[in-house]
Amino acid sequence: MTTRIAIDCMGGDHGPSVTVPAALRFLESHPAAHLVLVGQEAAVRPLLGAAAGNPRLRVVHAAEVVGMDESVALALRNKKDSSMRVAINLVKAGEADASVSAGNTGALMAISRFVLKMLPGIDRPAICTALPTAKGHTHMLDLGANVDCEPEHLLQFGIMGAMLVAAMEHKERPRVGILNIGEEDIKGNEVVKAAADLLRDSGLNFIGNVEGDGIYEGEADVIVCDGFVGNVVLKASEGLAQMLASALKSEFRRNGLTKLAALIALPVLNRFRRRFDHRRHNGAILLGLKGISVKSHGSADVLAFTHAIARAYDAAENKALDRISARMAQSATVTARPEGAA
Amino acid sequence: MTTRIAIDCMGGDHGPSVTVPAALRFLESHPAAHLVLVGQEAAVRPLLGAAAGNPRLRVVHAAEVVGMDESVALALRNKKDSSMRVAINLVKAGEADASVSAGNTGALMAISRFVLKMLPGIDRPAICTALPTAKGHTHMLDLGANVDCEPEHLLQFGIMGAMLVAAMEHKERPRVGILNIGEEDIKGNEVVKAAADLLRDSGLNFIGNVEGDGIYEGEADVIVCDGFVGNVVLKASEGLAQMLASALKSEFRRNGLTKLAALIALPVLNRFRRRFDHRRHNGAILLGLKGISVKSHGSADVLAFTHAIARAYDAAENKALDRISARMAQSATVTARPEGAA
Repeated sequence: MTTRIAIDCMGGDHGPSVTVPAALRFLESHPAAHLVLVGQEAAVRPLLGAAAGNPRLRVVHAAEVVGMDESVALALRNKKDSSMRVAINLVKAGEADASVSAGNTGALMAISRFVLKMLPGIDRPAICTALPTAKGHTHMLDLGANVDCEPEHLLQFGIMGAMLVAAMEHKERPRVGILNIGEEDIKGNEVVKAAADLLRDSGLNFIGNVEGDGIYEGEADVIVCDGFVGNVVLKASEGLAQMLASALKSEFRRNGLTKLAALIALPVLNRFRRRFDHRRHNGAILLGLKGISVKSHGSADVLAFTHAIARAYDAAENKALDRISARMAQSATVTARPEGAA
Repeated sequence: MTTRIAIDCMGGDHGPSVTVPAALRFLESHPAAHLVLVGQEAAVRPLLGAAAGNPRLRVVHAAEVVGMDESVALALRNKKDSSMRVAINLVKAGEADASVSAGNTGALMAISRFVLKMLPGIDRPAICTALPTAKGHTHMLDLGANVDCEPEHLLQFGIMGAMLVAAMEHKERPRVGILNIGEEDIKGNEVVKAAADLLRDSGLNFIGNVEGDGIYEGEADVIVCDGFVGNVVLKASEGLAQMLASALKSEFRRNGLTKLAALIALPVLNRFRRRFDHRRHNGAILLGLKGISVKSHGSADVLAFTHAIARAYDAAENKALDRISARMAQSATVTARPEGAA
């Protein structure tokens, strides 16, 4: 069966100048994949070049564009023919298996939720992304969709994250942790404590609390937190990595001698940079919907956006959604008949 | 006037083997400072060497030790002769101007609060530390003392942080920001929004929201957040920096050629490492008390603990406490007579 990804070509800081070359690059490296490019034909078609006749590529015109700073309510109500909306409509209609957009997160979340609807048993969508760790990587959610969470929401995030990792990485029992603080008497707030109790009884491979440093030590495969904490940690990490990279660069540019050292160390530094290149982790999945909607960084370049498309493709290919739905159906059964629970 | 610091020599993962050499090193580099070493004399005295006769050094015996994993309630109730407690008692009695401990945070917080009492107008103590930024450094609070905060608490943190920076860095109008998330429709939770309103009306130089990446971009001199978020961000940052440093090291150790490159790049790498050495930022101040109590990392080595002592000394020398008290007294007046507010 063909896996087909719908791409919002107009979203992001750079629009088609990034999204279309990324789509073409992705098509080359994934010989079985099909893409639907959604956007203003006049902006998209001229960028296709030789790929215009590629049978695995289709262009769908959408007249409108959701602005990066546009009000979510207005985007949802008035922009029914936006590239973002049309791409998600394709997923809803079964004409695509996932969508990717670098557009405004709030609008993408609202439109995805409105068009695709929530999965049974999930109250709120969550944003989930992979982060590099000392041992490989981990998945963290929520990263900003939900500011105030109840314990049940955090439980649902844990289930969704675990099923995503199980599907995409073929880990049957991914380790699930909950982000918390460690000091004895000030350990966690009430919501986190209650959520930990729910996770402990969930049948997931729950490993308990993960502190901030545990994220990057690779203590868990899935780390659950509310969207406020998750968003702040994610952005603080990006900011810190950026600051360290700039400082290292400026140290190597200090004078002739350090520039020579840089030249000699270049292969090592490049290897290091590649390993932690955040562009290779681009592509957050909005979980909890009846369809796969992937959010790319707004400022993504061609390499980063290619990775976001690949992420959507992998999620679709590995039937991540079926896995989550099946588990939720099972939870519902378990909840309904606790005596039958394993 | 003499500034005198009381040191809990028994606290921390390494006890006197770190705290005493650090104290001696501090004494050498601060020719006007006086220190009181508190702990088991049999453990402390043998480490003094030639400094035993130094008139700026005094040893005060304390028979008990608060364990690193000890229950806060038990430490508070039963260990009245612990080195931690006796050091803080000295501050209370006016025999020292500040205390430093690398002991268990929960116990230090509880004992500091119990012995020193809260400043009028402050409901809860907060842990405040300096973090390096692209432009210098910033101060963040709370870092773990308060998990669930009301807007008024965050306002108080803002005032305390601003006055600390004003006193210690002679910045009259430090920029105060509140940690928040940026997406338009999901911006912040109710507590943060209400706290931002209070800070806007506080007379402080409030610059509004700071997102996670803004911390390290140096957007503000003081960043306010609740202790859960602050603790997670601080530890995640430590974990990330640690992971990147290890990875860089292992890349340079890959083979003979990369080892040669490392040798050549060593001066640059060392300079870089020194610049972001977290040990140089060791020493968090517990703010909101009628006395200065400084918390060192439990795992601090001699260099790190020396910096924590220096931090306590600077806070005492610069009369940080007077500055906070004066501002709180002024706030009380302003609150009582709003028509007279500037």
